[in-house]
Amino acid sequence: MNNQYTVSKYLLDRLYELGVSHIFGVPGDYNLSFLDHVIAHDGLEWIGNCNELNAAYAADGYARINGISALITTYGVGELSAINGIAGSYAEYVPVVEITGTPSTIVMEKGLYVHHSLGDGNFQHFINMFKEVTVAQTFLTQENADQEIDHILLVCLKEKRPVHINLPIDICDKPINKPKKSLLTLLAESTKGNEKILKQFLHDAITKIDKSKKPIILTDFEVNRYEIQQTLYDLAEKTGFPVASLSMGKGVFPETHPQFIGVYSGTLSSPYVRKRVDESDCIISIGVKLIDTITGRFSQGFSDNQVIEIHPYTAKVEDKHYNSIFMKDVLNQLTLLLHHRPTEELDISPNLSNASSFTSRFISKSNEKLTQKRFWQYICGFLQEGDVILADQGTAFCGASIMPIPNKATFVGQPLWASIGYTLPSLLGTQLADRTRRNILIIGDGSFQMTAQELSTILRQNITPIIFLINNNGYTIERAIHGKYQPYNDIGIWQYHKLPSILTHEGNFISFKVESETELEEALNDAAHNSDKLRFIEVIMSYDDKPKILEKFGMLFGK
Amino acid sequence: MNNQYTVSKYLLDRLYELGVSHIFGVPGDYNLSFLDHVIAHDGLEWIGNCNELNAAYAADGYARINGISALITTYGVGELSAINGIAGSYAEYVPVVEITGTPSTIVMEKGLYVHHSLGDGNFQHFINMFKEVTVAQTFLTQENADQEIDHILLVCLKEKRPVHINLPIDICDKPINKPKKSLLTLLAESTKGNEKILKQFLHDAITKIDKSKKPIILTDFEVNRYEIQQTLYDLAEKTGFPVASLSMGKGVFPETHPQFIGVYSGTLSSPYVRKRVDESDCIISIGVKLIDTITGRFSQGFSDNQVIEIHPYTAKVEDKHYNSIFMKDVLNQLTLLLHHRPTEELDISPNLSNASSFTSRFISKSNEKLTQKRFWQYICGFLQEGDVILADQGTAFCGASIMPIPNKATFVGQPLWASIGYTLPSLLGTQLADRTRRNILIIGDGSFQMTAQELSTILRQNITPIIFLINNNGYTIERAIHGKYQPYNDIGIWQYHKLPSILTHEGNFISFKVESETELEEALNDAAHNSDKLRFIEVIMSYDDKPKILEKFGMLFGK
Repeated sequence: MNNQYTVSKYLLDRLYELGVSHIFGVPGDYNLSFLDHVIAHDGLEWIGNCNELNAAYAADGYARINGISALITTYGVGELSAINGIAGSYAEYVPVVEITGTPSTIVMEKGLYVHHSLGDGNFQHFINMFKEVTVAQTFLTQENADQEIDHILLVCLKEKRPVHINLPIDICDKPINKPKKSLLTLLAESTKGNEKILKQFLHDAITKIDKSKKPIILTDFEVNRYEIQQTLYDLAEKTGFPVASLSMGKGVFPETHPQFIGVYSGTLSSPYVRKRVDESDCIISIGVKLIDTITGRFSQGFSDNQVIEIHPYTAKVEDKHYNSIFMKDVLNQLTLLLHHRPTEELDISPNLSNASSFTSRFISKSNEKLTQKRFWQYICGFLQEGDVILADQGTAFCGASIMPIPNKATFVGQPLWASIGYTLPSLLGTQLADRTRRNILIIGDGSFQMTAQELSTILRQNITPIIFLINNNGYTIERAIHGKYQPYNDIGIWQYHKLPSILTHEGNFISFKVESETELEEALNDAAHNSDKLRFIEVIMSYDDKPKILEKFGMLFGK
Repeated sequence: MNNQYTVSKYLLDRLYELGVSHIFGVPGDYNLSFLDHVIAHDGLEWIGNCNELNAAYAADGYARINGISALITTYGVGELSAINGIAGSYAEYVPVVEITGTPSTIVMEKGLYVHHSLGDGNFQHFINMFKEVTVAQTFLTQENADQEIDHILLVCLKEKRPVHINLPIDICDKPINKPKKSLLTLLAESTKGNEKILKQFLHDAITKIDKSKKPIILTDFEVNRYEIQQTLYDLAEKTGFPVASLSMGKGVFPETHPQFIGVYSGTLSSPYVRKRVDESDCIISIGVKLIDTITGRFSQGFSDNQVIEIHPYTAKVEDKHYNSIFMKDVLNQLTLLLHHRPTEELDISPNLSNASSFTSRFISKSNEKLTQKRFWQYICGFLQEGDVILADQGTAFCGASIMPIPNKATFVGQPLWASIGYTLPSLLGTQLADRTRRNILIIGDGSFQMTAQELSTILRQNITPIIFLINNNGYTIERAIHGKYQPYNDIGIWQYHKLPSILTHEGNFISFKVESETELEEALNDAAHNSDKLRFIEVIMSYDDKPKILEKFGMLFGK
């Protein structure tokens, strides 16, 4: 039996083929047999999480760096604990394969009242729930497993959104044949764009671009998800057009590039960026979704007739729609067909020249209490090329969103789904996806408490990210929006910097508690020169202090 | 405006009227305005949790003691984080009111891409998901608020299962009229049974009972949920019939009562209990649901023709069904109509006489390592009348299920939904629901890690339960079922006993780490004589040691 090719092996081999080498999750009696196959697989490593929500967040982070990820939960309790994380991946287009181990086929057919079910003999409840937050769902059988697995993974890859595989415990070890074709071959075969529509689009788009005096590229997260940053870069270089990004896709275009003018966020943008985007007569919008948190609550100052909108499989020129054309083909063709415009015609003021508050080097060894303003200056100066920077929704994301980041840095945040606590488990995923890159997390105390136990798994994996925990006594973003002094925005007071010592016995971390600039500098110096151990830096700041942009954000959202 | 009666006040007054005095949850920008009303309400206390799953667990625990509970989350991220807890309440018939603060009516009507939505302009996704795990759902408007609130709370009370109220942020402060009639009056008016059917049932049931030689009462959790323990007690006293319970309803009938013969769990029962139940010619089954974890995987040895089945609103005699009759009426009438049978006819061997391994007092001051067997003996001797005992699914629940508990003790576990980690936040709820009762939690290390941060909220509330954390290095119940030495059943190694000192700065706890019997005795002595502070007792036991019943359980479920 053990030498036979099985449903479990088929699924795991397919995941491995797509680049998955770590699988997250929590064991449960409906998935234990399947987990045996994970442990036995040469290319896969099992990462046991403290709970399933954290596993889903970790898988989300892993997929953002690795391109795809998987997690395994048990039926009912496990998959529903994870579902908020899966919904986040769905909202933000992150391809995660959620595999649920279910009761056996016969138990479900008979409608038995088993644990982890609702006790009503109906085993469709949870797949119904997953229909709302995944792009495909399946119950595997011996007969359908090969086709269903291939189909569902292709949908995941094409749509860059989560899928839900139910694997009954009796199906794990059923024999099936090995796959014949590689999935990427199948993917290529099944994704061909419509050339006629592409031609029509190019004609209309180029006409509009050529007519325009102040074209600009506005870009966002979909470029990251479809991994065509280089294609975007080529288009920008070829045309010379200025580039702005939204914060959800921060870093998708190098922020130090002379054509990069900054992060656009409606009325919360810097005056120059706002004017340059809003008054452009041709905004080439690439992979952008205009959601409230990244547009200063829908305060963007442009309308459809200024815009050419390009998405992964569709496009729009003013009010005309084009389907079945692919973002990558569109960008490649535009790069080929558009000519270069001289910089002096284009009103380009590079981001770095506007961000002097961040980039001007300063020397300071004061024992004054650290402020938000100074904290972000220090962080900005601390960043290096290739860093992965995670910022939790709230103070951290707001502060980080306007801070210039180095080339080849990846920025991970969750401004649409905005589930606080997401980034700590996500860090586990981003760091495991590439151990060679330096990972830096900035997270507030309220967010940290949501998912704090996952620090244990991070320590267990002997990875060495740098974690900045902003301790300012409560939900600062909520205070900024409403109820500044209300007790519901208070949280428990923890000794955060001592927590790592409780969650590991390995001594594989260094912990700091910093209150002054001097102390922060010391911690940063240490972290800059040593990467042997995880750094946990608790940063104390006043609950009343917040980044300026958060203050404005709070006023907009408090309305 | 502030003096006006509003939708928020209506909802909160109704909850207060039903006995809710603590509301659990997490703030979010879609519920902050509503939380202002909670803070302002004289009868309600806001309990901010670390995360929403924990809030849902706490609300579940609160409702099990208090009769009903409420929690408040924000839209999307909040309610979906809570949904596993709500599903547990649904499966196990616990009446919890989940209130979600949603984006404003106009934002939803316009289909705007706001944060905490899936970014598709559709605001029905999450209510669709809640339809699977709640008995009623609503979106409040100014016009429907009074009727909808009353309707949904009545459904919650009648069905003892969770309901889902969506409160758009703009509706909170809309003026409406105060309620006129009390909800309990409305409830009484709307719940009248069918007397004719009741008569027919009584005739058929009594005929069967009178014919029987070895009747027995088998009872379970529904009696707890409908709070008719006294009615059950009266029936048992009047008839003299022996009583067995299933472990889900452990304690529903006093375990020290001479008619109580023990906990029935199919082939996992003691031989006498198993035989007495299985061979009864008339099993009066009251509030029982035969699920796998409490029946030794459906190993009950009786069939329909032996059984009179009584549920909250239905009943069955052999294969004949009766609807629209109420469990309380049924029990009252049976008590009235049945005569007493002499004990000697009924083959009653009281539980306490069979549980000598637990109840025989022993003196021991050995420094030997503590074993599971001895641990449960100590715990049993430590219990007092009126205790609330929570046992997390796994080692803790298995061990506790067969331990006799004192009179008026309440046993809280979750054998059907079986979501590990449930009991720690649940303890917050059970203890707040009644601060005068001593609350005792027994939880394993793997379960504890799931929801560990909620210890912070427990400490913040200055409540003083006794927590036993069994540290035996991993998921013991899973090891018993499958993969004893597999790495997926390992967990991170924590310094559990030091954790409370990290999560509070108040010094309002005493912490122990015990490895021997002597050390356990010392900790128990301390806890028995002091209730000023929370007691956190980390109990070290071998990962290889487990209660005997868990061993058998593991073998049954490993198949």
